[in-house]
Amino acid sequence: MNTPPLYRQLANHYLDAIRSGTLKTGERLPSIRLMMEKHAVSLSTAVQVCRELEDYGVLEARPRSGNYIRQPDSAPKPAPALAPALDTSLYAGIHEQVCAVLKASQHSTIKVNFASAYCAPELYPLKTLQDNMIKTMRSDAYLLGAAGSTCGNGALRNILARRALASKTHLAPERIVITNGATEAINLALRAVTRPGDTVAVESPTFYGLLQILESLNLRVLEVPASAHTGLNLAALQLLLQGPERIKALIVVPNLQNPLGSIMPDANKARLVKLCAEHNTVLIEDDTYGDLVDSEQPLSTLKHWDRTDNVIYCASLNKTLAPGMRLGWISAGKWHDRVEMLKHTQSRGCEVLSQLAVSEFMRTPSYERYLRRLRKTLTVQREQMSTAISRYFPIGTSVTHPQGGTLLWVELPRRHSSMVFFQEALKVGIQISPGDIFSNANRFDHFVRIGCGAPYSPRIDEALQTLGRILKNQG
Amino acid sequence: MNTPPLYRQLANHYLDAIRSGTLKTGERLPSIRLMMEKHAVSLSTAVQVCRELEDYGVLEARPRSGNYIRQPDSAPKPAPALAPALDTSLYAGIHEQVCAVLKASQHSTIKVNFASAYCAPELYPLKTLQDNMIKTMRSDAYLLGAAGSTCGNGALRNILARRALASKTHLAPERIVITNGATEAINLALRAVTRPGDTVAVESPTFYGLLQILESLNLRVLEVPASAHTGLNLAALQLLLQGPERIKALIVVPNLQNPLGSIMPDANKARLVKLCAEHNTVLIEDDTYGDLVDSEQPLSTLKHWDRTDNVIYCASLNKTLAPGMRLGWISAGKWHDRVEMLKHTQSRGCEVLSQLAVSEFMRTPSYERYLRRLRKTLTVQREQMSTAISRYFPIGTSVTHPQGGTLLWVELPRRHSSMVFFQEALKVGIQISPGDIFSNANRFDHFVRIGCGAPYSPRIDEALQTLGRILKNQG
Repeated sequence: MNTPPLYRQLANHYLDAIRSGTLKTGERLPSIRLMMEKHAVSLSTAVQVCRELEDYGVLEARPRSGNYIRQPDSAPKPAPALAPALDTSLYAGIHEQVCAVLKASQHSTIKVNFASAYCAPELYPLKTLQDNMIKTMRSDAYLLGAAGSTCGNGALRNILARRALASKTHLAPERIVITNGATEAINLALRAVTRPGDTVAVESPTFYGLLQILESLNLRVLEVPASAHTGLNLAALQLLLQGPERIKALIVVPNLQNPLGSIMPDANKARLVKLCAEHNTVLIEDDTYGDLVDSEQPLSTLKHWDRTDNVIYCASLNKTLAPGMRLGWISAGKWHDRVEMLKHTQSRGCEVLSQLAVSEFMRTPSYERYLRRLRKTLTVQREQMSTAISRYFPIGTSVTHPQGGTLLWVELPRRHSSMVFFQEALKVGIQISPGDIFSNANRFDHFVRIGCGAPYSPRIDEALQTLGRILKNQG
Repeated sequence: MNTPPLYRQLANHYLDAIRSGTLKTGERLPSIRLMMEKHAVSLSTAVQVCRELEDYGVLEARPRSGNYIRQPDSAPKPAPALAPALDTSLYAGIHEQVCAVLKASQHSTIKVNFASAYCAPELYPLKTLQDNMIKTMRSDAYLLGAAGSTCGNGALRNILARRALASKTHLAPERIVITNGATEAINLALRAVTRPGDTVAVESPTFYGLLQILESLNLRVLEVPASAHTGLNLAALQLLLQGPERIKALIVVPNLQNPLGSIMPDANKARLVKLCAEHNTVLIEDDTYGDLVDSEQPLSTLKHWDRTDNVIYCASLNKTLAPGMRLGWISAGKWHDRVEMLKHTQSRGCEVLSQLAVSEFMRTPSYERYLRRLRKTLTVQREQMSTAISRYFPIGTSVTHPQGGTLLWVELPRRHSSMVFFQEALKVGIQISPGDIFSNANRFDHFVRIGCGAPYSPRIDEALQTLGRILKNQG
């Protein structure tokens, strides 16, 4: 048997102290700094120890005060039979787990899919986009006969730059690169500013797709706690930035974070941008969801607060307009030339037809009207789903109330395992996203992400009832 | 001033010996092996010394015999004023030069473009493909509303696997991944089997896009000589494989190599596959041009000779069907899972519409008919261009006679510089590809690649006359 990783040894040390009564309920745990000094461990290990204790339900974080010992909800989970050889919080290793989850879903007959972050197809303006594609093809018989330029179509880049102005974000059209979704945008950003082995910080929980990208690029991952209200925890970030480990880049979804749905307050955005600049940590912003906010007032971006060209802005139309078109973009500021080179050698310029068809739509007032309608629809759908979950799921369940988007992040009572829940649901044809895959550190074992992209219906209502029953049967 | 690289120092040593008469015309140069022992240099340095002497026109390689001193064509070129700090044959560093060439072209008004490897748009079945796209959209209103799967559309993968059988190549449809062109396919292959700093061998000359991919992935490049008749020089490869430098992968275009147009004989293909397997060097095959061969008989692939699953097969429809659709594919054998993961994290599944439209066309007999017509057209176009080049270009020019494809590789008399030629041509609105960018080692300074994708016309004839005049004025 391998030796448990250091953080687990230390966590066990504190667990023993709590069980034996040496540390009592209500007492304060040594601060992270003290823990680092006392045990001669790194910042990330100390942070991980606290997470571990949190996971055991014996620790309560009180803002601006510290970590306090609390009565565990239930019996502590038994230690895993085989401790992993690697500290999984530092190395992304989530890909296999995510694949297992996705493949299990592919091999099942799915009747109701709550695992998607997309809107239902009927909510997208597909007819208009199809018509635009046909019109575009008819007006240029040779369109399919020539490759597009690496950076993408000029008309679309202009429109994206003009739209960004609404959120007071200045993106020079000639420094925008059209990509295959935000996935490629973030991939390019990371390839431009990191090397294999570098450390990149992400929000925790974070979209599992991000963890997969980081793993594929052999990057080390540091998870920074985030809350459903204000997103990334800046105090925690600051500690990590001051720690011994050089953080090369930080990826943040400031608006309607996936899965939390959090929106960072403007003051936090400004402070975050400043912090990263001060520590020479490149800030990669993913603004894929911003346009799905309930309010008519556009949300500010991190890029808006950027004075030192240290923010790489990424976004996508996959969630807001047409998942099938795979259109995203990146504005990489001073790294533009490198990103352009990487895009050229990675996949060349994106296919032109969809860029033209989308531009045609986005330059008309219909686009804003469409977005307004979509936002209202999503508000209603989320509200209905949230009400049903509160009704059908066991007491002790709590649901986020994001101010936009398609996602709810559901915390189940601690006794539940989201992987068991996922498997049970799959057996009856219902797909959910288990919390486990939103972190490398098993922090969200009793969470699930529920997508609200589809109009509420008796079928959905019934599926949520079934999910509630499954949970109640688990005891 | 920096010290010249070792290979240049040694080349100068031999040049001095030749100039002073110590080594006489007709005498044999020490063999590569002897040179390695005598000067305690690496295999790649010894090979580079021979290349350098070849470039000075003082060396003649006689098959199965060795390298002999010969009378130089003209006065030896003066040594460059500043010797490069790096051995450019080992590190790709071509990207900036390629960009400079491409950007110069973008900033000029191009009247006649001989730099493209594509066919003229009117030679592609664009109308049929457009009709298929429209039909596909009309039959599925939600097509643009959902993302495709990572590996691509099942129907297209089946058709590609079935077509491969014609060249006796067995590709399992479920292990094909549809990519954004061959560029992404090769990028994925390299990401799957190499790490930054590894050495990858390529044919010399090779398509500059490949050198850019290698540079973007921080891979070291070894160039292996190739001939316009039989492609990759297996004897040279064998020497390099036996050398001290571990070659992780080799990228080969066995059929209608770009720019040489060479087709490797079957015996060479078989031997190459065996050699690579023996040396544990992954063989990455790019079969983008194979379908453009003159003969009706499909060419065999390297994959056909593969017994140990050591060949990664890449191809594309960009040259044969529709450059604007950006469809390529990769069959990565035992690396399939890793390639699928990298594709998923790099750009996700390709856009579905074009895959369906192309499948619709490729599954009909019209596709074979179309290819037959295209091949005949290209044979005629190449012949006309070749005749005109022989007529208009200076005495001493030689042109390849490939048995298919869109490219001619033109060797000018040694006194000409292809970069100067490129610049002069650009001034009068004619674009060519200078030989310099087809190698990191400046081996092809007096070569140009001429694309024959467009139907011959008075405008093209006139442009070739103009090019001939420019060369003659250069003296």
